[in-house]
Amino acid sequence: MKLAVIFGGESFEHEISIVSAIALKKVISCELVYIFCDKEREFYLIPTQEINSKRFSSGKYLNDAKLTLKQGGFYSKKMFKEEKLEFDAVINIIHGGDGEDGKIAALFDFFKVPYIGPRLEASVLSYNKFFTKLYANSLDVKALPYEVLSKNRRALTLALPVIVKPLRLGSSIGVSVVKEKSQLEYALDVAFEFDDEVLIEPFVENVAEYNIAGCKIGENIRYSIIEEPQKELFLDFDKKYLDFSRTQRVFEAKITEKLHNEIRKSFKTLYEPLFEGAVIRCDFFVIKGEVYINEINPNPGSLANYLFEEFDALVRELAVNLPKSRKIPVEYKYINSIQSAKGKA
Amino acid sequence: MKLAVIFGGESFEHEISIVSAIALKKVISCELVYIFCDKEREFYLIPTQEINSKRFSSGKYLNDAKLTLKQGGFYSKKMFKEEKLEFDAVINIIHGGDGEDGKIAALFDFFKVPYIGPRLEASVLSYNKFFTKLYANSLDVKALPYEVLSKNRRALTLALPVIVKPLRLGSSIGVSVVKEKSQLEYALDVAFEFDDEVLIEPFVENVAEYNIAGCKIGENIRYSIIEEPQKELFLDFDKKYLDFSRTQRVFEAKITEKLHNEIRKSFKTLYEPLFEGAVIRCDFFVIKGEVYINEINPNPGSLANYLFEEFDALVRELAVNLPKSRKIPVEYKYINSIQSAKGKA
Repeated sequence: MKLAVIFGGESFEHEISIVSAIALKKVISCELVYIFCDKEREFYLIPTQEINSKRFSSGKYLNDAKLTLKQGGFYSKKMFKEEKLEFDAVINIIHGGDGEDGKIAALFDFFKVPYIGPRLEASVLSYNKFFTKLYANSLDVKALPYEVLSKNRRALTLALPVIVKPLRLGSSIGVSVVKEKSQLEYALDVAFEFDDEVLIEPFVENVAEYNIAGCKIGENIRYSIIEEPQKELFLDFDKKYLDFSRTQRVFEAKITEKLHNEIRKSFKTLYEPLFEGAVIRCDFFVIKGEVYINEINPNPGSLANYLFEEFDALVRELAVNLPKSRKIPVEYKYINSIQSAKGKA
Repeated sequence: MKLAVIFGGESFEHEISIVSAIALKKVISCELVYIFCDKEREFYLIPTQEINSKRFSSGKYLNDAKLTLKQGGFYSKKMFKEEKLEFDAVINIIHGGDGEDGKIAALFDFFKVPYIGPRLEASVLSYNKFFTKLYANSLDVKALPYEVLSKNRRALTLALPVIVKPLRLGSSIGVSVVKEKSQLEYALDVAFEFDDEVLIEPFVENVAEYNIAGCKIGENIRYSIIEEPQKELFLDFDKKYLDFSRTQRVFEAKITEKLHNEIRKSFKTLYEPLFEGAVIRCDFFVIKGEVYINEINPNPGSLANYLFEEFDALVRELAVNLPKSRKIPVEYKYINSIQSAKGKA
């Protein structure tokens, strides 16, 4: 089996995507080919043996083979013809914009490239935190109360302390905790640097947080272990940056069987059928014994490999069990019948 | 000004998109170039003077110039180089799959092609009728009650009569009215031919229906007139097919000023800011004096030209007032700082 890894993208999380992509080399045993999407959204084939973060920051990748995305896959130019890049599936590890907002999903669906990653609807519903709330609420999965503010509507009704987040980013970029009224305007200004809309939620001090990842293969969800991530007020970008290179297995959270089952159940409810084809990580809060979805990461850092017992086998099994698109027949039945009625056929 | 029109697509509504595209020639006065997306999702430049439905059903278009979508636009191959197809903006008039589900939006956003049409999130939220319900409900715009059934969950709790719709199609394809229990299974089978999920709503006999279109330019919504469409149980595909070629202006519905204002208000609430960049048509029901959203058409048939006083001027004004994407800086700040800490920089 040969897998491709697409990473980079025009994204605030471009750099952590590079880190994630490099981390995958350590945890996937089959042959990997690396497709870099640079900030201009041009594609380059990066030699697997020579991948390191400097290649991108220095611009050295510009000498690597350029790829064009067309029907069926990525093509490179040879002397007189084009050569298709062979692989069984691409792993989408572009974080944030392009990778998690639905663009890469749409490109791969349109050009019929098999891929591991969230589909179009799944991307849009998890990337936009307001839509995630609507989605979770519709499935009776609890989510914290929220307000959406925009540049024209900055009046907050939630009581402090609150957490202020750009509506559409991940990786804690532009996120602030506001404990006093005097901090609110600045926190909003920061968040509005990254998005025209901002999500506000109550900030729960010392909240218990549990992360679980998984994917569906055939009829079954393959769950990772449940981790209680290390406590921080919230991960700032530098810490999260390092976090994305994780390949060390972690320990299972010490929780009751009841809570364990409830977290799995919430994960399953959110996953099916929207996220089929993707390895996602859900971050849950537990407040007064109740499970709340905090965030759905449809392309988690380094694909959350460190949470799985058998990550390598899982990815390779998923690669050959991806959702199939429905074939749409286009038969010109109506045009032919109209032409025939007009005597033109 | 020069506008491009993209039409076709791998879609159950491929044929009506051809009809819509041809209709636009009659109502837009500036130079038009036609980009056909065939059922294999290859792009062709169709000579504007020679466009007619037979060109597509006969396969004659395969002799037209092939186009490749890359950064910045569509390119055709000349002897030793590639030539960019020049235009100010593309009008997306692909109906249903590809055009309204978010794929074309994602492609054009990714490759930085300016376009008239729904953006990625707007497409996903209007294409999936379940998401449309969540969206409308969140904005306090009334929508009929509903149930979503899947192949594994076919038990209906809504009282008959109901209307059965594939969750993700437009143009009445696969839609049935079920008045008696004996008709339900067949109606579900028909709908499941087109989607794995089905939306069920109460069927309201002789419901008053009003259609309104519009788009936002600058700070203002430009509304079309409000039409009361001709009564049919619901439009079947043949009738709707003809409907998509409409270029004849229609008459304004005779309704009270209060209702007129309420329909406009609901339109505005649904439009802003999600649908910026698109000319959409909303189909409302009025039941016991209350306005309900029935359907949001983000690429309505022939762009609902027949509802506007000044369609030609409107489209050309919109083409130069499209939403701008936020520029994302990628500066390798973190990678550089890490390398510098390691002594590698």
